Amino acid sequence: MKEYFPTSKIQFEGASSKNPLAFKHYNPDEIVEGKTMREHLRFAAPYWHVMRNTLGDPFGAGTAQMPWDDGSDSVENALNRVDVFFEFLEKMDMDFYCWHDRDIAPELNDLAASNAALDKVVAKLKEKQNETGKKLLWGTACLFNHPRYSQGAATSPDARVYAYAAAQVKKALECTKELDGLGYTFWGGREGYSTLLNTNMKRELDNLATFLHMAIDHADKIGYTGPFYIEPKPREPATHQYDSDAAACLNFLREYGLTDRFKLNLETNHATLAGHTMEHEMTVAANAGLLGSVDANRGDTLLGWDTDQFPTDIYGTTQVMLVILGMGGFTTGGLNFDSKRRRESHEPIDLIHAHIGGMDTFARGLKIAAAIRADGRLSDFVKERYASFDEGIGAKVAAGNTSFEELEKAALAGGEPVISSGRQEMLENLINEFI
Amino acid sequence: MKEYFPTSKIQFEGASSKNPLAFKHYNPDEIVEGKTMREHLRFAAPYWHVMRNTLGDPFGAGTAQMPWDDGSDSVENALNRVDVFFEFLEKMDMDFYCWHDRDIAPELNDLAASNAALDKVVAKLKEKQNETGKKLLWGTACLFNHPRYSQGAATSPDARVYAYAAAQVKKALECTKELDGLGYTFWGGREGYSTLLNTNMKRELDNLATFLHMAIDHADKIGYTGPFYIEPKPREPATHQYDSDAAACLNFLREYGLTDRFKLNLETNHATLAGHTMEHEMTVAANAGLLGSVDANRGDTLLGWDTDQFPTDIYGTTQVMLVILGMGGFTTGGLNFDSKRRRESHEPIDLIHAHIGGMDTFARGLKIAAAIRADGRLSDFVKERYASFDEGIGAKVAAGNTSFEELEKAALAGGEPVISSGRQEMLENLINEFI
Amino acid sequence: MKEYFPTSKIQFEGASSKNPLAFKHYNPDEIVEGKTMREHLRFAAPYWHVMRNTLGDPFGAGTAQMPWDDGSDSVENALNRVDVFFEFLEKMDMDFYCWHDRDIAPELNDLAASNAALDKVVAKLKEKQNETGKKLLWGTACLFNHPRYSQGAATSPDARVYAYAAAQVKKALECTKELDGLGYTFWGGREGYSTLLNTNMKRELDNLATFLHMAIDHADKIGYTGPFYIEPKPREPATHQYDSDAAACLNFLREYGLTDRFKLNLETNHATLAGHTMEHEMTVAANAGLLGSVDANRGDTLLGWDTDQFPTDIYGTTQVMLVILGMGGFTTGGLNFDSKRRRESHEPIDLIHAHIGGMDTFARGLKIAAAIRADGRLSDFVKERYASFDEGIGAKVAAGNTSFEELEKAALAGGEPVISSGRQEMLENLINEFI
Amino acid sequence: MKEYFPTSKIQFEGASSKNPLAFKHYNPDEIVEGKTMREHLRFAAPYWHVMRNTLGDPFGAGTAQMPWDDGSDSVENALNRVDVFFEFLEKMDMDFYCWHDRDIAPELNDLAASNAALDKVVAKLKEKQNETGKKLLWGTACLFNHPRYSQGAATSPDARVYAYAAAQVKKALECTKELDGLGYTFWGGREGYSTLLNTNMKRELDNLATFLHMAIDHADKIGYTGPFYIEPKPREPATHQYDSDAAACLNFLREYGLTDRFKLNLETNHATLAGHTMEHEMTVAANAGLLGSVDANRGDTLLGWDTDQFPTDIYGTTQVMLVILGMGGFTTGGLNFDSKRRRESHEPIDLIHAHIGGMDTFARGLKIAAAIRADGRLSDFVKERYASFDEGIGAKVAAGNTSFEELEKAALAGGEPVISSGRQEMLENLINEFI
Ligand SMILES: [Co+2]
Ligand SMILES: [Co+2]
Ligand SMILES: [Co+2]
Ligand SMILES: [Co+2]
Ligand SMILES: [Co+2]
Ligand SMILES: [Co+2]
Ligand SMILES: [Co+2]
Ligand SMILES: [Co+2]
Repeated sequence: MKEYFPTSKIQFEGASSKNPLAFKHYNPDEIVEGKTMREHLRFAAPYWHVMRNTLGDPFGAGTAQMPWDDGSDSVENALNRVDVFFEFLEKMDMDFYCWHDRDIAPELNDLAASNAALDKVVAKLKEKQNETGKKLLWGTACLFNHPRYSQGAATSPDARVYAYAAAQVKKALECTKELDGLGYTFWGGREGYSTLLNTNMKRELDNLATFLHMAIDHADKIGYTGPFYIEPKPREPATHQYDSDAAACLNFLREYGLTDRFKLNLETNHATLAGHTMEHEMTVAANAGLLGSVDANRGDTLLGWDTDQFPTDIYGTTQVMLVILGMGGFTTGGLNFDSKRRRESHEPIDLIHAHIGGMDTFARGLKIAAAIRADGRLSDFVKERYASFDEGIGAKVAAGNTSFEELEKAALAGGEPVISSGRQEMLENLINEFI
Repeated sequence: MKEYFPTSKIQFEGASSKNPLAFKHYNPDEIVEGKTMREHLRFAAPYWHVMRNTLGDPFGAGTAQMPWDDGSDSVENALNRVDVFFEFLEKMDMDFYCWHDRDIAPELNDLAASNAALDKVVAKLKEKQNETGKKLLWGTACLFNHPRYSQGAATSPDARVYAYAAAQVKKALECTKELDGLGYTFWGGREGYSTLLNTNMKRELDNLATFLHMAIDHADKIGYTGPFYIEPKPREPATHQYDSDAAACLNFLREYGLTDRFKLNLETNHATLAGHTMEHEMTVAANAGLLGSVDANRGDTLLGWDTDQFPTDIYGTTQVMLVILGMGGFTTGGLNFDSKRRRESHEPIDLIHAHIGGMDTFARGLKIAAAIRADGRLSDFVKERYASFDEGIGAKVAAGNTSFEELEKAALAGGEPVISSGRQEMLENLINEFI
Repeated sequence: MKEYFPTSKIQFEGASSKNPLAFKHYNPDEIVEGKTMREHLRFAAPYWHVMRNTLGDPFGAGTAQMPWDDGSDSVENALNRVDVFFEFLEKMDMDFYCWHDRDIAPELNDLAASNAALDKVVAKLKEKQNETGKKLLWGTACLFNHPRYSQGAATSPDARVYAYAAAQVKKALECTKELDGLGYTFWGGREGYSTLLNTNMKRELDNLATFLHMAIDHADKIGYTGPFYIEPKPREPATHQYDSDAAACLNFLREYGLTDRFKLNLETNHATLAGHTMEHEMTVAANAGLLGSVDANRGDTLLGWDTDQFPTDIYGTTQVMLVILGMGGFTTGGLNFDSKRRRESHEPIDLIHAHIGGMDTFARGLKIAAAIRADGRLSDFVKERYASFDEGIGAKVAAGNTSFEELEKAALAGGEPVISSGRQEMLENLINEFI
Repeated sequence: MKEYFPTSKIQFEGASSKNPLAFKHYNPDEIVEGKTMREHLRFAAPYWHVMRNTLGDPFGAGTAQMPWDDGSDSVENALNRVDVFFEFLEKMDMDFYCWHDRDIAPELNDLAASNAALDKVVAKLKEKQNETGKKLLWGTACLFNHPRYSQGAATSPDARVYAYAAAQVKKALECTKELDGLGYTFWGGREGYSTLLNTNMKRELDNLATFLHMAIDHADKIGYTGPFYIEPKPREPATHQYDSDAAACLNFLREYGLTDRFKLNLETNHATLAGHTMEHEMTVAANAGLLGSVDANRGDTLLGWDTDQFPTDIYGTTQVMLVILGMGGFTTGGLNFDSKRRRESHEPIDLIHAHIGGMDTFARGLKIAAAIRADGRLSDFVKERYASFDEGIGAKVAAGNTSFEELEKAALAGGEPVISSGRQEMLENLINEFI
């Protein structure tokens, strides 16, 4: 079979290697906190960025060289891409992947034809999965690209569009099940609004909740037992996205009784667009017991949109891995590189460079996070900082069995509290010991 | 009694007046949608900005001329200020006001002394209320200025600080009750974190929820039956504030079972700092049935902090009034001008100019919103836009009794949906017809 | 000839009209400050948004209905569009238009073929101009869409790309001359960088300056005597655009001796993306004597990219018109609607609604600005505020003939200065008297 | 003499030390690229943050423990602080410091008294400099804190304020000269505007330029031969600051003929507030030959104001040091820690932790930058990327002796350029090899 990525399989060569086409930190079988790096990190490649992203932007045409692609909407072309994608997975030594229905198979003249095309590609993906052992981390339906969805899919003002979206999710969920997918994701690309002038927000959110309950019902019917994920994102593409951040998603899930089957899929750049750090969003989700999976990338906080850059900042990956290790690791989720090359990096080999960088940066984040945990100074500091809630009146607060009257008595008796320094600068220095 | 604001009571003179010290639109007794403007708008003045804001900023000392203030922490000075404040309320023809405990009375050497000072000022406020008919829209405790609260109050890592905060809220709630206050507000100035490195977010939020439940218990005990408000705000003063926006607050209230007694007090600039429009935040809260009151101001979206400018943008006040009229008006809440003059506007008369502007701008917003509603074209457009959910399969979606299978059938049968334009530009033009 | 916009020519019907397809404020022949509105406002339509914008976005395909367009790159299709565009200009009663070379004619297999296609379309445009009296406000070359320019055009690291860009500008300038264009614009879409790691900024800017000097030389050779404009824009599409704001452009023009032939073309949303108000950017340019033309639109300051929305905010257009009237009006420039409909407004009639809104909003801005100027209170306030520089030591400062020693003597003698209030709130109220 | 910082002099202990009160990377006498770290980095402490910052913020009182300070405005207190400050400089092993006039000595009842107080403190500083060998990196006058400057100092609308500012700068410059200061800085805290409604921008900038020319004249008169620096900053404290970024400052300096004696003092957080990276601002200034000195800190790009955090991001310090090494190192400038502890870090020892972190992070940045330069792969890549401008038509472009006609001929002959990848991801991975 013709190869398209001009490299052999990427190998671990260690930190001293100067070979740009080698892992310097990701050593799949190296043990960290009792598991291999491979088991911890569960790297996934997104079909959309690797295979379908032409690197166009709002001011320019696509630049990406895709010598394997004939540019057509044919099923043959779609089947061809599967081979190239698995070449990529093999060469990168990644165990998982993710797709939207319309990435893997073309949208054709009508829904039935599109569904038939999808079936053919899914059959081939299943074959390749069996051959290689690669797994589907999650599937999803693209409900944002087509003009019919320009005013929403599950929140469309038009019931015909809503029905179309339902049909598409139904099929995508069935394909996910067929491929033994570990999860199913909703990213509400068009679930939001451009202007409140023409929008009935309440009606749209009620419809959305109904949609998600129907998804659960259909999962039960077809025997899909994995989790559903919602991926929060603010601002893009709608002026206001309903799923704008972790808290907005959790509020919605709680209001509509969906927390049993839904978790969050968090993405770094979406966190920063919402004005939060990724570690904030992850902690919010983890505290709620609803952190499912991660879209690994980074943004440019001086720009105002989702740049989806590859994660190359060690501080960032360290923070992410601290939360993941802290919650005991992924169960069904993983680290999906929802990242794209810059438009100027238009050669296939740039895909290889980019993913090496992302994987190595997460490998370092994992090793550093584990070292910080083993060292113990950071967690000891935090534990000690709250020690006053472990005894006396503090313990009564923690147990929820005191009152304003009792606390007032303590305050009147206790005099002016003398508090300890928060030591932020010392702790930042401590982190730098490990970087 | 000596007067400090060099103007007589501000009168309505109509839109053609060129007198800067007159209302051009706020005509308190003019009827709009069956109620007087006064009843709709329920303007309140915040004690902190009117009486206590020296107009300092992080780079400069206060500039505000306060000829009535001797600069001391004495109770006498505090009592003096009450007279000046009521002169202001009278001259502005405002019916409501709001305070923090530490605005109206000094923080003295210990809690008992501070409480005693507070009692004296509250007694005088009660007298003045009786004299003038002015009412307390809401009270609150300042849990953010004192160094003891630098690491949090109800989320402090130190149980002694937590107890102190509880004692302070207990007293402030009792004073609110004593003054027949219509509401009690929590703004969590220091409830958040500067760095996750030293923070146990879960523990802090559990403690915060316990705190709020104790507030409800204490209200029940003392017979305070009004609502509690939470005022969302992101970014300031902590790097991350827990109550960052309406959705974050609602999520918290739902998680901890607090929606029965808590509503939201929304502020325009806090909305924009969170990346939302004010009308978005108001709609989110109103849809949840939890929009309590409004802090009326505006921000500068090219700056990154809470500029608390007076609301002078007619578009903005129109949007706010559309939501308020849409939910049937305020019950216990009102429009509190949580706004301050620019540091360069240092004379007492600038306070008058500023509030005239804010009140007139809201009066115009009210009249315009009512006109838009009477016209009906906007609401008709929206109703029509969702009409497909009023019948057929759409109605089944709305009723929640369909399934992915039924919807798929409809989609396969229906062919490609042809959707209508959202007409945003036409609707924006429509709004401009009324401005 | 077949008509594509389902409306007759838009007429002025006055403020009380409820006809959405009428001007309510733009009355072309109404006299304001001694000139007609038409002469003041000099509205132009951009060929790119009106004819070529499919309303795609980074997450979705184009939605715009263009029944006149066969979707091909043929010259015939291009010639067809010219008729439709002039139908639009006629129906909107707009006197000017603007183009990029690649909007009006297709980019074909090689430069010679593209040039030949351009010649054919330019010939037709000339004919239509003659027929209708419409004029070209400015032309420009598209140096940002094609992959060859992905790393820059006049700042490309590749000399072949630089030469290609030069050839394209040469031709576009010649076409502008052929059409008696009043100006020629540079918008440096790709003149910037994504990362400094691979960039020699000094070398790129030197090359850019050389490029612009060659443009002047070529203008002289072909007898083009109009101004060149640079259009500042930050952030998009490159991470850093060299022409990021007015000050950055002026600094560049001064450094490389280009201020004689270059002025600025300012766009509102580009101003706000740079963290400035449009009135700031306009004042900076006007103070330097280098404000040439305006791209009329507005942004959404809660989003981080160039939304290019139609200008519908009366405050904004008032500010713009205050600066334009203040500098004595446009000479060669005008108000070019570099604005696009929202993706959901996909019908041709939405183009009509959108431009009516923009034109009416600017007409109101013009009338309001003129009224503020006639009233005189605002300018009197400003004049009075600086009066101390009209006499005594202040006048010596203004004349530049004093010294620190003399000023120190005055300061020591003068005691503590007592300054007047800046009265921002009163002035904001004053503006609202006119809105 | 009583000591206030509970540590002995901070020593270098190497990267494996776990002592939080030791340098792990800053080894003052270690040679890097032929100079000691001490000579490269030229660390300076700012008197304002170390001695005078109470850690108040807009929502809370100061928290900083300053056991050495009696809280008074007396000269004795000011003289006392000098000893504590030099204890700090000695313990941190920092060679330089910076001040505002009002940091080191109190502002008293009138200018003459303030000047006399300043003389006394300057005399003591001179003594301590002689004793210890510490040097003044730069002095400056505080023209932003006092209410008289609330509407500007050198851009005040009031000539008396302007004169006062001139007198203050005259004296501060004389004190700088007296202390053999290596530079003199202008940060235009109030040089900007809150609203254009009351502002004559042209008049203000003309006055500012006159002011700076008088500063040069006075320097010549008193024999101060060092550079003047302007420190760009946008947004804060005025809504619009005139010196908003490097380009705005350079534009101003060029317009008013000030580039001979003025350079820029760049601060990281001011760069990010302006929407630029620090390396961008530094490269802009260095390319103009006008990079004078650096205020070392970092911001939080998710917040919108100048957080002035200590620089602890190794990526950031590496970028800064790459530019500094690239321009051949500082001459009169240095790295001034214009950084403050978080409000929660209120103990004196937190000052020590914070500066250790900053110094170590810059030491690592220096070593990493030097390693990247020694390695050569990065600079080779950039050189190669522009190689086409070293020969043929590219060389003619570089020399400025070609024309659009010649370039068009080349373009027509050359066919479609095939460009190379920008390899951003590979280069980011390369940087990570050195982190
Ligand atoms: Co994602
Ligand atoms: Co993304
Ligand atoms: Co508020
Ligand atoms: Co506020
Ligand atoms: Co434009
Ligand atoms: Co634009
Ligand atoms: Co600084
Ligand atoms: Co700063």
